Amino acid sequence: MPAVNKDRLQEKIHCFAQFGAEEHGGITRLSLSPAALAARTELTKRCHALGLFVETDDIGNIYATKTGTETLPRIAMGSHIDSVINGGNYDGTLGVLTALEVVETLVRENISTRHPVTVMVWTNEEGARFAPAMMASGVLTGKFSKDAMLAVQDEDGVSFGQALLAGDCLGKTDNRLNPQDYLAYLELHVEQGPVLANENLTIGVVRGVVGMCNYTVTAHGQANHAGTTPMQERKDALYAASQCVCTLYERLGRIDPDLVFTFGHIACRPNIHTIIPDEVRFSLDARHQEPAILQEVVKIVRALPAQTANCAISVEEAWSRKSTLFDPKLVALVKKNADALGFPNRHLYSGAGHDAQYVQDILPSAMIFVPSEGGLSHCAKENTSIDDCICGADVLLHTLLDLDAEDTSIRDRYLSVGE
Amino acid sequence: MPAVNKDRLQEKIHCFAQFGAEEHGGITRLSLSPAALAARTELTKRCHALGLFVETDDIGNIYATKTGTETLPRIAMGSHIDSVINGGNYDGTLGVLTALEVVETLVRENISTRHPVTVMVWTNEEGARFAPAMMASGVLTGKFSKDAMLAVQDEDGVSFGQALLAGDCLGKTDNRLNPQDYLAYLELHVEQGPVLANENLTIGVVRGVVGMCNYTVTAHGQANHAGTTPMQERKDALYAASQCVCTLYERLGRIDPDLVFTFGHIACRPNIHTIIPDEVRFSLDARHQEPAILQEVVKIVRALPAQTANCAISVEEAWSRKSTLFDPKLVALVKKNADALGFPNRHLYSGAGHDAQYVQDILPSAMIFVPSEGGLSHCAKENTSIDDCICGADVLLHTLLDLDAEDTSIRDRYLSVGE
Repeated sequence: MPAVNKDRLQEKIHCFAQFGAEEHGGITRLSLSPAALAARTELTKRCHALGLFVETDDIGNIYATKTGTETLPRIAMGSHIDSVINGGNYDGTLGVLTALEVVETLVRENISTRHPVTVMVWTNEEGARFAPAMMASGVLTGKFSKDAMLAVQDEDGVSFGQALLAGDCLGKTDNRLNPQDYLAYLELHVEQGPVLANENLTIGVVRGVVGMCNYTVTAHGQANHAGTTPMQERKDALYAASQCVCTLYERLGRIDPDLVFTFGHIACRPNIHTIIPDEVRFSLDARHQEPAILQEVVKIVRALPAQTANCAISVEEAWSRKSTLFDPKLVALVKKNADALGFPNRHLYSGAGHDAQYVQDILPSAMIFVPSEGGLSHCAKENTSIDDCICGADVLLHTLLDLDAEDTSIRDRYLSVGE
Repeated sequence: MPAVNKDRLQEKIHCFAQFGAEEHGGITRLSLSPAALAARTELTKRCHALGLFVETDDIGNIYATKTGTETLPRIAMGSHIDSVINGGNYDGTLGVLTALEVVETLVRENISTRHPVTVMVWTNEEGARFAPAMMASGVLTGKFSKDAMLAVQDEDGVSFGQALLAGDCLGKTDNRLNPQDYLAYLELHVEQGPVLANENLTIGVVRGVVGMCNYTVTAHGQANHAGTTPMQERKDALYAASQCVCTLYERLGRIDPDLVFTFGHIACRPNIHTIIPDEVRFSLDARHQEPAILQEVVKIVRALPAQTANCAISVEEAWSRKSTLFDPKLVALVKKNADALGFPNRHLYSGAGHDAQYVQDILPSAMIFVPSEGGLSHCAKENTSIDDCICGADVLLHTLLDLDAEDTSIRDRYLSVGE
């Protein structure tokens, strides 16, 4: 039975950990940065060496394709190689490198496939340099306007379009992933959460990506001198905001055990220790697979009192995302192969967003999760054991081979919906 | 009975409001900035025109002196002309301009004094460009090392020492305010709080400056993905910090009605809406005239639980300042003159810090407060009616004349303590 090679995958992981390596571990490899461009070049070089032909589309996505034996649509596998600031070596990168290792296995073991097989790299998945996240898959699937995305600027005023041009990453619109030329999309990714690690499992069979809603809550106070303003005359926006955080935490915590919610960002104005804050705003990010639960969240946020601690409270929706369910047939194939290979596994939902969730709108897609040690991600400590990486890559390989043996009926449903 | 002139004082206020004027009112006149240097030059020009001799010390403080009829120590009056960013036209400036108007009244009315009378301008009271606040009076009274202060840099890397040199503000160490050559120090200032305005009073007789303590409270959590980390595994530092703010607010609020406390600054790391914060720190500033009350504050802060919401909580003292009581004899003179002039007045404590509180350590000092409309300060809306300004200036004038009539016994106590 074909299997990927541990030493080869280990070498790939070590090699790509150099691009953007940070002194104390992990990487900073912002989209289209010199480090990211170097990683793209290395990947292209390796693909050429394996005899793949490499194309780029107009958003800088890379497609490295091994030809098939029949005139059939391609099967794509991949992920991203950009990172957040002080990110880890596995988020995204492992999905690209396992896809590469799967194709390398096909090449070295002389396994031919009926369908062409394409290793994909998505540009700017993280959105850490150019917001929003999942920008390129969002453009390809009609979520974002291409012109608006090309105009998005990083902190230094460089636009995404300028960065694509400067990095020599601009290819043809015709090369885009599309439902006519592709059969399906598979993405392996680290879980970025503790579920698999806690339950001692090796493979997560991802049913879908949970929906989320994002709100901004603002407390409107009155700036005043910390020493001269009597307490009863104060409109202290930070105190009001703290009360809102505590209230929301308690109320949201009662809705459902699977609901996760985070107050990750806070901005205080003027943020000087001797001045009573006049405006404090914080973010609320809530995620759950069931829309009804998210509706409960919205109700609770909207029910915050209009006045707290003498401050007016306003609530604004920043954005929301519906739940995505991956293609049930593909999900079943992943499950079948994890079981067949004897890897302890379970179904789960992704709390994080991934390019695959956008692709699912135009192509049958599925994701394979491997464990994140300690549930840690987006940090230097992010780690997945090489054995777990190998298990994931083998599930990817066999899911690909199963798909290759299928007829194209899996895709036809999408084509009919799309037209 | 001598009295200051309303039109002259109004003209002075209008003139100085130009230096660093902001489009929508108020000023930005950071210490030793071009705007502040222009204001210093204008002041010097006006002092020369009144026949005063102008000296500068080695920290850039300005001393403009009208000679007396006897060989006696000087009486100093003044304040500062630097502002915070988007500050008002009265904070500091009014103390300098009323002192100038008092001396102009002496000159124009041919009122001679036994003691020389000095109009003072303190350099960098606000500390908005070069921290800390009250830097120059702090150096003169031994609170800060001169070398350390000269090395303090602004945001652009310009040191205080370089700015003094570049502004041509460096004078002689011998010119410093000192207890041998000076009898007393008087400072008129806007209240920067609502007490006088709320009670419809014209004059605040300042007993002293309240003591304060400043603490930094830090919640130590664990950064993690907002979508993939189950609630029960989270160490959410922002939630923990919010709980600490609410707990402290409630407990500190019970200590004493005169205690004021502020959580003005908060820093959240990494402060990204999709990441659980791993460290959140906030400032606590608490002020009260009685040390025992501040001790209660410290006890409550120190009694925060070591763990909140799975996060370790640490507490660090940033700094503290003891209460300052102004010279009782001088305070009584201010009160006597406010009463004699028929101005509604009350005793109060300053919640804000002022150069006078440092000077009090080496010279008998006192402060006169005039009302701040709406209690607003450090903003464009900062305002004091010209009538209130005149009342304050007249109290300053008559307190000066009373002091001039005194013997030097008021100073002797300080000399003996100092030596």
